[in-house]
Amino acid sequence: MSAQQGRQLKLGAILEGVATDHSTWRDPALPGDASIDINWYIENARLAEASKFDFVFIVDSPFITPDTAPHFLNRLEPLTLLSALAVSTSKIGLVGTLTTSYWEPYNVARQFGSLDLISRGRAGWNVVTTGLEGAARNYSREDHFEHSLRYRRAREFVDVVQGLWDSYEDDAFPRDKVSGVFLDKSKQHALNHKGEFFSVAGPLALSRSAQGQPVLFQAGVSEEGRNFGAHIAEATFAGAESFEESREYYADLKARAAALGRDPDLIKVLPGLAPIIADTDEEAKAIEEARRGAFDLEKLLVQLGRLFNYHDFRQYPLDEPFPDVSGLTLNSYKGHAERVIRIAREEKLTLRAAAHRFGLWRTEFVGSPKTIADSIEHWFTGHAADGFILRVARPQDFALFREKVVPLLQQRGLFRKDYDHSTLRGHLGLPVPENRWTRAARLNLAAAE
Amino acid sequence: MSAQQGRQLKLGAILEGVATDHSTWRDPALPGDASIDINWYIENARLAEASKFDFVFIVDSPFITPDTAPHFLNRLEPLTLLSALAVSTSKIGLVGTLTTSYWEPYNVARQFGSLDLISRGRAGWNVVTTGLEGAARNYSREDHFEHSLRYRRAREFVDVVQGLWDSYEDDAFPRDKVSGVFLDKSKQHALNHKGEFFSVAGPLALSRSAQGQPVLFQAGVSEEGRNFGAHIAEATFAGAESFEESREYYADLKARAAALGRDPDLIKVLPGLAPIIADTDEEAKAIEEARRGAFDLEKLLVQLGRLFNYHDFRQYPLDEPFPDVSGLTLNSYKGHAERVIRIAREEKLTLRAAAHRFGLWRTEFVGSPKTIADSIEHWFTGHAADGFILRVARPQDFALFREKVVPLLQQRGLFRKDYDHSTLRGHLGLPVPENRWTRAARLNLAAAE
Repeated sequence: MSAQQGRQLKLGAILEGVATDHSTWRDPALPGDASIDINWYIENARLAEASKFDFVFIVDSPFITPDTAPHFLNRLEPLTLLSALAVSTSKIGLVGTLTTSYWEPYNVARQFGSLDLISRGRAGWNVVTTGLEGAARNYSREDHFEHSLRYRRAREFVDVVQGLWDSYEDDAFPRDKVSGVFLDKSKQHALNHKGEFFSVAGPLALSRSAQGQPVLFQAGVSEEGRNFGAHIAEATFAGAESFEESREYYADLKARAAALGRDPDLIKVLPGLAPIIADTDEEAKAIEEARRGAFDLEKLLVQLGRLFNYHDFRQYPLDEPFPDVSGLTLNSYKGHAERVIRIAREEKLTLRAAAHRFGLWRTEFVGSPKTIADSIEHWFTGHAADGFILRVARPQDFALFREKVVPLLQQRGLFRKDYDHSTLRGHLGLPVPENRWTRAARLNLAAAE
Repeated sequence: MSAQQGRQLKLGAILEGVATDHSTWRDPALPGDASIDINWYIENARLAEASKFDFVFIVDSPFITPDTAPHFLNRLEPLTLLSALAVSTSKIGLVGTLTTSYWEPYNVARQFGSLDLISRGRAGWNVVTTGLEGAARNYSREDHFEHSLRYRRAREFVDVVQGLWDSYEDDAFPRDKVSGVFLDKSKQHALNHKGEFFSVAGPLALSRSAQGQPVLFQAGVSEEGRNFGAHIAEATFAGAESFEESREYYADLKARAAALGRDPDLIKVLPGLAPIIADTDEEAKAIEEARRGAFDLEKLLVQLGRLFNYHDFRQYPLDEPFPDVSGLTLNSYKGHAERVIRIAREEKLTLRAAAHRFGLWRTEFVGSPKTIADSIEHWFTGHAADGFILRVARPQDFALFREKVVPLLQQRGLFRKDYDHSTLRGHLGLPVPENRWTRAARLNLAAAE
């Protein structure tokens, strides 16, 4: 049976140059300056577009140390990068990460709104609150915002941004050269927001794109993160350690959204997917073993420490039980850090085992193209995922996925063979949101009749 | 005598879509959506590049009202726009306006640094402090920063940004795949700035471009504005009402820079140039008259009011002396506003006359291509300008300038026939600034020898 008429798999591709771990960059096929070379990004975005991916995705974080992984050390900034990609592609969505903790909502609304016009309706914003406390010191603050406060602040921030995006109704600009009317002033709307954290008058000097507003992505896993996602997300970038864990997250997030009166089908749950692919399952498993063996334990400890505000795990004995770090502030990547502590306790992991387990992206997706496609189908039909965000920094892995796995998914009727739309909302099956002022006028009119 | 070996004229082109006055947009040749159509910008940037312009220039302002002129009402945002232009051109400089009053220096350093890498050394930042008090209300502030405070703040802001741009020495990344050394940690430098307004630790996650750092532009005309320019500007976007006024500004600014120990040749003074060109001088003058006659007086009053925080001049009698508005706050475009008051008094202008005089871009540059080229040469050789920033929204004016005036300037040896460089610093004859840490190490070494 073809699934062509029904639910369709969504696929994103993370473009992260020399990768966010400490060893991938040494792959001979990966250019050492990939993270700062716009041509590398353009080439890979075009490859993803040729394979009909829904979007490319740019990760981000506003704080580094000398021990930070290669991609984060030196990389193009998301908004400038995506704007360059916007005119180098024509269909694929363009999703960038940006923190609500260290920006002004007016500037964020302008830049994503501008990207949305430049790309003609292909922009997405991955809304994060920043997990690294050190970021505060780059922004004239002594301390990072406390975890639950920064989610409350993020909610208001997103409200303001969405309000600004609706500053002009879609028919606000007659541009009538004969009569001399450029703007219909009744269709320009100030926001006049006054809230707990922000006061923003507006209007924003930008009309809306073909998709109405940029798509909101979100990636929180803590309790606050899930609630925030249930409120605002149209797509979530989730972890993907196991089918069971993802299915729980999927059901939980959609239930939270439904409880808020939202249609749960309009939040796409997209786990991160870091597959290891080879011609046969045996070869893929051998590659996995070799890669794990090649990892430098010290760097895995640094990578693990990043989840705990760059806590230095190198101070503990390696072969004793995972240290008690629950007393550490969890004002960082709280959801991730709590999960590490819980699993380490449940599975009685040593620090060495935990470093291997959490310092790398773990994946169930190891095998031949058919095995990978089977797993994807299993997760998709089993409601552990609406699709995946692909994390493959190595050119050969990306090539195998595009050339071998995508065609299998297309043959099975799970994934598009060509684009039916030219906006990100179109690809994701999300409706164009009606301008709030147009809607209010329509409802008032209906009520008066 | 050819000036080919000597001082060379610099030319920028403002890309401002449907223009920042209230009547140009009605020109039949100008698309009504030019200000939000990336293809319009790409086409015009390529035309400027084909004529060997030094740079394109994007004006900006973070506040609008329903009465704002068409371009400002609805336009692409400078950083996203310039990033799209960066991959659509290969030689021309890319200069964007951004205010220090409502941004974080870390974000500004990142975005301009990223644009500089994407464009391979063609970025420029026009540093402004924002003249419109209403902007405060888009950024959660009750009041706009007071005029002299915002210049003090801007000085520190620029210091921080320039410090962050030097986070990595140029040889910081060995990227040695065999030994596994990606970063030479001794070449990554935190800034640890703590000042009156900002505390910024760094480092910034960006290496430097081929031109070292983006070029700093500035446009202040008040006392504080000139001092700020003397300190930080590498090029200034000045007014250009008359030869005498420009020569005074030119000499004054360079003297102030020299007094600070700077080489005055390394600040390029570039007045805004809004020429009216036709086959003959008579035709050009007739066009000028017709355009002035077509201006709507009410809109000129609004345009004039913008310099005074959108003060409403429509309340005063038109044919009486220019009203006494000196009691109004001049916390806005202070230099421009003071100049209007001064000239109105000196020349005994009525409000109607002042609206025509200051509500339009006044220009001495009206005539045939030869007349225009003669005026440019006069200003250039007379040290009233090192070049010009062209403000021609109408396609036919831009075409005449490119096709008729530029060749004359080239024949006279005043302007390049082809690019000799591929960075903005190269075009402007500005040296690549040595990284501050590399320099310090070199000087320490020299001192020890």
